[in-house]
Amino acid sequence: MKEKIDLLGAGLIGSLLAIYLRKRGLDVSIYEKRKDWRKMDSSGEGRSINMALSFRGWKALEKAGIREKVLPYTQPMYGRRIHDEHGNTFFQPYGKDNQAIYSISRNSFNKLLLDEAEAQGARLHFEHKVEHVQVGNREVRFSLPDGSAKTVRSEVLIGSDGAYSSLRNAFQSQLRFNFKQQYISHGYKELSIPPAPNGDFAMDPNALHIWPRGKFMLIALPNLDKSFTCTLFLPFEGYKVSFENIHDDQDVDQVFKTHFNDAHALMPNLLKDFRRNPTAALINTECYPWTENNALLIGDAAHAMVPFYGQGMNCGFEDCYILDGLVEKYGTFSWDLVFEKFQKGRKPDTDAICQLAMDNFVEMSDNVADPKFLIRKKIEARLHELFPKEWVPLYSMVTFSDMKYSEAYAIGKIQEKVMDQVMRDPLITQNWDRLDYEDILHQVEVAGAV
Amino acid sequence: MKEKIDLLGAGLIGSLLAIYLRKRGLDVSIYEKRKDWRKMDSSGEGRSINMALSFRGWKALEKAGIREKVLPYTQPMYGRRIHDEHGNTFFQPYGKDNQAIYSISRNSFNKLLLDEAEAQGARLHFEHKVEHVQVGNREVRFSLPDGSAKTVRSEVLIGSDGAYSSLRNAFQSQLRFNFKQQYISHGYKELSIPPAPNGDFAMDPNALHIWPRGKFMLIALPNLDKSFTCTLFLPFEGYKVSFENIHDDQDVDQVFKTHFNDAHALMPNLLKDFRRNPTAALINTECYPWTENNALLIGDAAHAMVPFYGQGMNCGFEDCYILDGLVEKYGTFSWDLVFEKFQKGRKPDTDAICQLAMDNFVEMSDNVADPKFLIRKKIEARLHELFPKEWVPLYSMVTFSDMKYSEAYAIGKIQEKVMDQVMRDPLITQNWDRLDYEDILHQVEVAGAV
Repeated sequence: MKEKIDLLGAGLIGSLLAIYLRKRGLDVSIYEKRKDWRKMDSSGEGRSINMALSFRGWKALEKAGIREKVLPYTQPMYGRRIHDEHGNTFFQPYGKDNQAIYSISRNSFNKLLLDEAEAQGARLHFEHKVEHVQVGNREVRFSLPDGSAKTVRSEVLIGSDGAYSSLRNAFQSQLRFNFKQQYISHGYKELSIPPAPNGDFAMDPNALHIWPRGKFMLIALPNLDKSFTCTLFLPFEGYKVSFENIHDDQDVDQVFKTHFNDAHALMPNLLKDFRRNPTAALINTECYPWTENNALLIGDAAHAMVPFYGQGMNCGFEDCYILDGLVEKYGTFSWDLVFEKFQKGRKPDTDAICQLAMDNFVEMSDNVADPKFLIRKKIEARLHELFPKEWVPLYSMVTFSDMKYSEAYAIGKIQEKVMDQVMRDPLITQNWDRLDYEDILHQVEVAGAV
Repeated sequence: MKEKIDLLGAGLIGSLLAIYLRKRGLDVSIYEKRKDWRKMDSSGEGRSINMALSFRGWKALEKAGIREKVLPYTQPMYGRRIHDEHGNTFFQPYGKDNQAIYSISRNSFNKLLLDEAEAQGARLHFEHKVEHVQVGNREVRFSLPDGSAKTVRSEVLIGSDGAYSSLRNAFQSQLRFNFKQQYISHGYKELSIPPAPNGDFAMDPNALHIWPRGKFMLIALPNLDKSFTCTLFLPFEGYKVSFENIHDDQDVDQVFKTHFNDAHALMPNLLKDFRRNPTAALINTECYPWTENNALLIGDAAHAMVPFYGQGMNCGFEDCYILDGLVEKYGTFSWDLVFEKFQKGRKPDTDAICQLAMDNFVEMSDNVADPKFLIRKKIEARLHELFPKEWVPLYSMVTFSDMKYSEAYAIGKIQEKVMDQVMRDPLITQNWDRLDYEDILHQVEVAGAV
């Protein structure tokens, strides 16, 4: 008799986790509120359409044995291409020459993972909307499309049901559950740049494009069909350029012509996209504990972050990787132990990446356009070149390694302090490649040793 | 035709608010999930049995015209009486000679306020348990004791329904609602010290008694019947003296004999109390916005704090006072405006007092027993004596004034910095009354001016 395990939510994290758990021989069911969107055009729901896979994500896919299947769906981006207000662009590599993050469409990726989960034997139950969860006995009441109710009593229950998790809502009324949900002042809207008239990409296809404008920005990620998916981030209110101040097509045109003129020329569907696509909010959630009584929160359900470090999905996949490692080590007989080890070990890391994601908005929308920031990045790249192990830039630790997020965060804080000092040199623009790099590294080592 | 306004929760805040609103001529209904406990022995529910009224609370009661009715129910406490491990006690005044906080029983206070609200014409609906709130149209579905449901559509809805507010729960799924709930590592249990055999108070009746023991403490507040209500604060787990390590009567006796021996001698009902009374958790909640669509959160529903500054009720009463002032100013025609002004003006202050309450556990349970802390308090008292307007200790700003909490907080931070510096003098114990007090004040003024 196989042990039964139920997952709520068939998104990216739920699907990958189902693959892992099937490989461990468990009887896996996934309950999902949406229709089976694999037969439909688009999953919609105002979620971000493009994801950026990085090292942690790939590592988790590899262990699940599906790295090779995913690769053809991705488009590597080796750096940021910054667009200034005059239409000039320049390129900032993300890491070393061969290091990239990989753009992938959420929709096709989710289809692929879910197909794989199903092929591995996971049972899929669509159109099951959670109405109530009894945490004490893991009894979940679903409503079905015909209006009827269905109750499932789980032996082991995992909530991979995202930022607005039903399981977490049920946890919230448990004794001593700590929870925070925080919306940022910015919202976003998805837009698009179709292929050029010649059928090719309209811009450099191997970069994440950014139009940094201080309090707001536009970004674009390449798709396999040679289009780009764009995301416009604006404050909801309180600024001249904000969602509350855009009332009609003319306002949209005005904002794009003034601030994103080169992009505007490539966006024939701008007005239609802007009208049709919802303005979505951005939430950060943190909570603890993640487990109660053989039930567990994972991925966004446990820690939803804002998208500015491109780590939401990668972090969720790493959750699955780590959880699977614990199942490997402790077996499936003591889920309480596995879940307890998981939350204790993982929580400091997800706190760190949530914070980094929050902080990174300023870097993406403002700093990247600052000449001094570029010098700073060059110095850091040089340090990394000279001392490849001793100085790894924060972005690289997060994106191109599987170092614990909390450790990357702590090292990043020390580097930041040292670099703030280095950048105080008034002649840094002229002197940056003649610095005493050994000494800079030494300062970090001293600070790290304290 | 009078304007209708519905309140959820007939606790201290809801009852006082109802009095205010009736005085403004509104048609007020209060919906309360509990039975009408005025006819019962005790309200129970694991809530703290004693409250400490201070300046802000009195001011709000005065404006409502019920100060004189409340006064006979209170017992003034002019300071803390600290009990050390050897049974010695010493007294720390809270402020000047005539300044006190006033112990009052929650139960009789709530009865009094509710009687008054009813006498003023508020309609009371007991045993109405909120099942669902539709924020969009302020439709509240209640369940009644007979199992039936009742739906009320409010014109104006106010949630004075405490730390676990149903209205706030409904707000939580609204777009861009920020929310945090945080439990601290300590729990509490109510205990008691009955009157002495001679019928009198068993200890000094004009003090709040504290047995500070670092990671844990016991406190006691006097009652009109000459008993004391005690509250034991212990960590739930992770320490030798913690709730998880108390398994039976013997453990209880052991802890009290070892750490609270003088109190133990006065607690004949200790074991019975300990067994019977629940171990309760302590929550801090913060949220924003407080208002959506003619509905408002107030008191603990908007900002539940831990009890270590004795300000939870006082702050809630001050909420009512401020809200009433806005109604006075803007009238009852534009609740949106009134509620918006209320939340904007008040939020920084409730954030400040929530933080102060959190920080004050360390002061109560640890610092008060430190000889250097006592010197510090003496220096601050001297400063206050010399410069009664220029230097008001933080505790006094919070407790004996109606200065904005956020301002008190900011000034307190500056004072703390200056006092940290003063206390660095290694001979401070000998020199404290020969300091250059003018200079200390000057440092605060300089820091404040920066």
